[in-house]
Amino acid sequence: MAKGASISGFPEWLPQERVVEQRVIDTLRRIFELNGFIGIETRAVETGASLLKKGETSKEIYLLSRLQEVTAGEENDTPVEDRLGLHFDLTVPLSRYVVEHSGDLAFPFKRWQIQKVWRGERPQEGRFREFVQADIDVVGNGSLPDHYEVELPLVMVSALEALREYGLPKATVHANNRKLSEGFYRGLGLSDVEGVLREIDKLDKIGPDEVTKLLVSECGATEAQAAACLDLADMTAADGAQLREKFDALCDAHSIARDGDAYALASEGVDTLAMIVDEAAAIRPGSVIADLKIARGLDYYTGSVYETFLDGAASLGSICSGGRYDNLASQGNRKYPGVGLSIGLSRLVSYMLHTAHATATRVSPSSVLIAVWDEEHRLDSNRIAAALRARGISADVAPTAAKLGKQIKYADKLGIPYVWFPNGANDEAGAPDEVKNIVTGDQEQADAATWNPAEDYAAQGVVLGKE
Amino acid sequence: MAKGASISGFPEWLPQERVVEQRVIDTLRRIFELNGFIGIETRAVETGASLLKKGETSKEIYLLSRLQEVTAGEENDTPVEDRLGLHFDLTVPLSRYVVEHSGDLAFPFKRWQIQKVWRGERPQEGRFREFVQADIDVVGNGSLPDHYEVELPLVMVSALEALREYGLPKATVHANNRKLSEGFYRGLGLSDVEGVLREIDKLDKIGPDEVTKLLVSECGATEAQAAACLDLADMTAADGAQLREKFDALCDAHSIARDGDAYALASEGVDTLAMIVDEAAAIRPGSVIADLKIARGLDYYTGSVYETFLDGAASLGSICSGGRYDNLASQGNRKYPGVGLSIGLSRLVSYMLHTAHATATRVSPSSVLIAVWDEEHRLDSNRIAAALRARGISADVAPTAAKLGKQIKYADKLGIPYVWFPNGANDEAGAPDEVKNIVTGDQEQADAATWNPAEDYAAQGVVLGKE
Repeated sequence: MAKGASISGFPEWLPQERVVEQRVIDTLRRIFELNGFIGIETRAVETGASLLKKGETSKEIYLLSRLQEVTAGEENDTPVEDRLGLHFDLTVPLSRYVVEHSGDLAFPFKRWQIQKVWRGERPQEGRFREFVQADIDVVGNGSLPDHYEVELPLVMVSALEALREYGLPKATVHANNRKLSEGFYRGLGLSDVEGVLREIDKLDKIGPDEVTKLLVSECGATEAQAAACLDLADMTAADGAQLREKFDALCDAHSIARDGDAYALASEGVDTLAMIVDEAAAIRPGSVIADLKIARGLDYYTGSVYETFLDGAASLGSICSGGRYDNLASQGNRKYPGVGLSIGLSRLVSYMLHTAHATATRVSPSSVLIAVWDEEHRLDSNRIAAALRARGISADVAPTAAKLGKQIKYADKLGIPYVWFPNGANDEAGAPDEVKNIVTGDQEQADAATWNPAEDYAAQGVVLGKE
Repeated sequence: MAKGASISGFPEWLPQERVVEQRVIDTLRRIFELNGFIGIETRAVETGASLLKKGETSKEIYLLSRLQEVTAGEENDTPVEDRLGLHFDLTVPLSRYVVEHSGDLAFPFKRWQIQKVWRGERPQEGRFREFVQADIDVVGNGSLPDHYEVELPLVMVSALEALREYGLPKATVHANNRKLSEGFYRGLGLSDVEGVLREIDKLDKIGPDEVTKLLVSECGATEAQAAACLDLADMTAADGAQLREKFDALCDAHSIARDGDAYALASEGVDTLAMIVDEAAAIRPGSVIADLKIARGLDYYTGSVYETFLDGAASLGSICSGGRYDNLASQGNRKYPGVGLSIGLSRLVSYMLHTAHATATRVSPSSVLIAVWDEEHRLDSNRIAAALRARGISADVAPTAAKLGKQIKYADKLGIPYVWFPNGANDEAGAPDEVKNIVTGDQEQADAATWNPAEDYAAQGVVLGKE
């Protein structure tokens, strides 16, 4: 095989880094399951028709071709809609899965899913083309109660909280509501709602002056309308009552009639957002705040939208985003409204590894390496390892009967804390086994039927190191 | 979104089936880590150059195209070698990973890996185009001791043994050795070794008569040579000594000279195979047998080859295969020889679900559903759930404040064994909470700070049901 080479955008972890990623995955799964979410795994591919229907990223897709079709020159004979492509998120596959299996699911269906997704982008510095997402969603059959719109972000907050011991800073969910924004824009007389959301979404990147220009040039807004949009985006509120008060004052200032359809739509959004911040404050103060500039790019959201930021890591952007989507999945007249959030797990792990310096306490899962005096006695060492494994203790056996110093060096390189000497330190037949902690240097007699590693050395762990 | 539709060859499990698959994955990971294997995850894609180099399945590959290249008509501008494709196994990616990261790994490198792989085949009944493999391999730097050739199949045997409680029959590894076969064929005067192996591999499918014809017509064998090949394939041995004896007798019968190169090569293979069956018999009698018709399709094997069969499930074919490969990975003059085995996990799970009728004890991970008397008091129910979760008990909260019977029905549909009534059975303020086991009908007072589910109902499990 040719010399290996990394491919830009397809991250791959070294074993000690993978331990951190695996710990993050295990932790998220534990929290999701504690909260009653059901794990599923969907196939990696969807039809082009499914992938192309929704979402701004729909153009950044990898389509598949069978090699034999390529070599036969038949690659382009099939319309894109009928071809297979790799999923670019886990929400579109969930919607398809729910419709396909609706007869076999109990609704509302709460599911967690941690899987790779792919974006068929050009290679770009700092952009992943393959990465892992960790999603929770709840999908209703016909209808879905509002209370999930506060409960799901709170589950994500507790999941992210559980990752703080591995170096993640405190996370805060910033919530907004599409109905609130749309009602307000329409009340101002703006009809290109998606366009306005797209420009507002750029606020953090390009600043208010540039956004104002774009609102005028791209969305047909007057200077006054653009200013009103920025006033809304700038609004914050300490609680639901203040949100309502400030929003109404802004509507009055811009002559949005209280009895119009636009205000009625916006008002629904204000109610939901007020409920979210008030209930979240009651359960976990400071975890979810109203932030009216949150827009979210994907066009399938119809109500609440969320982005999540880490204290002191603004440059990372949102690490957990989502929202409510009422029209993504349907079958005939039957709709399956959902609400969900997605953690960009690979970026999170990258932050934990490279900024917080999370690292595995050891590369190997094993607590102990059984030394081998000579190849004729390897079976003795194997039997000791088997006895330990039967008691749940991970054990490895030295690869060769090299000099003892070399065997200890192998354990050290893998971070295995103990080395086991069959028949004592000098291999005297009948002598009791001995085990040495190569970190502390302590050595003691040991019996594979009863010995246990000290608690500090029992399990592979993740700790925060320094650069 | 359009009505969902399954795609042939891309299996997807219902939630209760996914519980079984997840249990299989967790069990294999536990056994692999007990044995000191280090978990890695490789990217899903490799370059066409890597994928096309080795292996008979190399033609069954999915290549990727960016949608934007497809719509611009640029799809075929890049040579296949420079394009990206989905990996078709986990051995080729491991070889590339080891070479790429050799400076950061401790050798011999023992790794486990459980991931999806893809085969770009035409849709065919009963063939998976996407499936999960569970692999263990050990890769040396420059050299690799033989003892791994018996240890790795034994790890797989203990992993498969751990799955027997979920309905898997007893597994037996059938081992052979490429050097043994090659030396014997060359000793007979046959030079198309790969061709002979390919035909011998068909024995179970088409029988000895057809294989004889093919050996004659495709590999240039005489009738006598073909008969000798079948005699070898037919050979079994109770132990290493008998293997050596029978093999030497067969060589004598076919006038293969003991002092020739061919016999010397074969003899190396006999030694390794004899070592494998004898050591396996000492540790786990009946787990690994010599079976000289095992050929394995993939051309990268250079020594031991393995296939694994389940008692009473011959039609399933080999469920765990592999071998030793000395030349797959290299960098300059440096070789990285390896030995590994791969479980076809999706087919195994399919067997467990559909033949052994393994099933989840419940769909939801939750032990208890907290009832909600009315939406105004949902927060009370949420607080009870939070108190239970803080103690590690998975809890769900009723989706709506529907009639109690409907809430209990929701729990029942998800298999949640307990329903919790805040303030007792009739919601009297200040009354103690009560919890009902809806399987047994037992109801008792309970405090979220101290209550635990009975052991039988504590965790989601996997049991064997009947059709």
